[in-house]
Amino acid sequence: MGDVDIVCLLFDGITALDIVGPYEVLQRLPEADVKFVARAAGEVRTDNKFLALVADCSLADITSADVLVVPGGFATRALERDESLLEWIRAIDTTTTWTTSVCTGSMLLAAAGLLRGKEATTHWASLERLTEYGAIPTSRRVVEQGKIVTAAGVSAGIDMGLTLVARIAGDEYAQGVQLGIEYDPQPPFDSGSVAKAPPAVVEFLSELYSARGLSN
Amino acid sequence: MGDVDIVCLLFDGITALDIVGPYEVLQRLPEADVKFVARAAGEVRTDNKFLALVADCSLADITSADVLVVPGGFATRALERDESLLEWIRAIDTTTTWTTSVCTGSMLLAAAGLLRGKEATTHWASLERLTEYGAIPTSRRVVEQGKIVTAAGVSAGIDMGLTLVARIAGDEYAQGVQLGIEYDPQPPFDSGSVAKAPPAVVEFLSELYSARGLSN
Repeated sequence: MGDVDIVCLLFDGITALDIVGPYEVLQRLPEADVKFVARAAGEVRTDNKFLALVADCSLADITSADVLVVPGGFATRALERDESLLEWIRAIDTTTTWTTSVCTGSMLLAAAGLLRGKEATTHWASLERLTEYGAIPTSRRVVEQGKIVTAAGVSAGIDMGLTLVARIAGDEYAQGVQLGIEYDPQPPFDSGSVAKAPPAVVEFLSELYSARGLSN
Repeated sequence: MGDVDIVCLLFDGITALDIVGPYEVLQRLPEADVKFVARAAGEVRTDNKFLALVADCSLADITSADVLVVPGGFATRALERDESLLEWIRAIDTTTTWTTSVCTGSMLLAAAGLLRGKEATTHWASLERLTEYGAIPTSRRVVEQGKIVTAAGVSAGIDMGLTLVARIAGDEYAQGVQLGIEYDPQPPFDSGSVAKAPPAVVEFLSELYSARGLSN
């Protein structure tokens, strides 16, 4: 196995954990080379502006990838209509072994036409919107359809990353990565999905996302 | 409840998920204000150099915090002897409601003298080293000792963040944050702790960390 070229998309309005979760897992692949890319090289700010991440490369600098990771965030709703970004995603996808997304990053894969007729997932609040692009909403945490792998909201990118490491480097290696990041989750509540969270909590968040135009 | 001033420490050689995990959770507190701080304002690079995060503030800019988050990474071994950083940590701690760490960030709290006689945790490979500073190694995922909260390796900062949100804003609010980041973990393996991982995997990683001077 030679270098694994991992390309992580950044943009203003990103949700930081969407990209840092899979990055932290995938960079532990043997011979991993990771590049962070945005429309222009330089800083992008998270949705709340609190954190800047740096893209070392511009879209024009990157013409191929073994693994493409497209994160989400409130900004994706507008980026679904950004034809030059979608064109770049389509072009990179023709070169990848794996094309992946976390959270509403899948809305960009969908808008680029890559999910037509395929099962896919996204953040729970946006799930039904996948049908607008001919994808089949699927509420699993990680959805594999050939080389396209979509993950559910925000933290699901960690599980997606481990799934990919297993595909690329084998189960035992992936178990080592899981131990390396001590990923033995013990959340203090069991409220991480619509099916498990208290109804009042689901309702409060659904209204918040609806007000931001992220759900149907 | 007024603003919650959250201060996240950055340094070259950081493990990105150590800080982005708790950041992603804590920034969802009502009235959260988050500042990223490093010795000097500007970019810091992760352990592998692949990702740069931006500190908007220098240590000198920050003189207090409601919540201090100290992350880990391979760099902490050297930073344990960085007296000016330890002095800053001690000074901020005198102002905090919560002083927290993720992974080997607790070695910096320990080196600063804040963990003497207290139970604490860190990345599993460094756990016994806590005794060098008079702390009591404790292999729980999140260890609360009064206002000091230490979390285990890398991904444990997400669980720590949710624990803190519950303390600060209540259980129901924390459940909402958990649903917001769709934290319903489903790792493809059950290999996230030394007790659960296959022995060969534990041995391989133990040798790796030992070679890097992170274990005893």
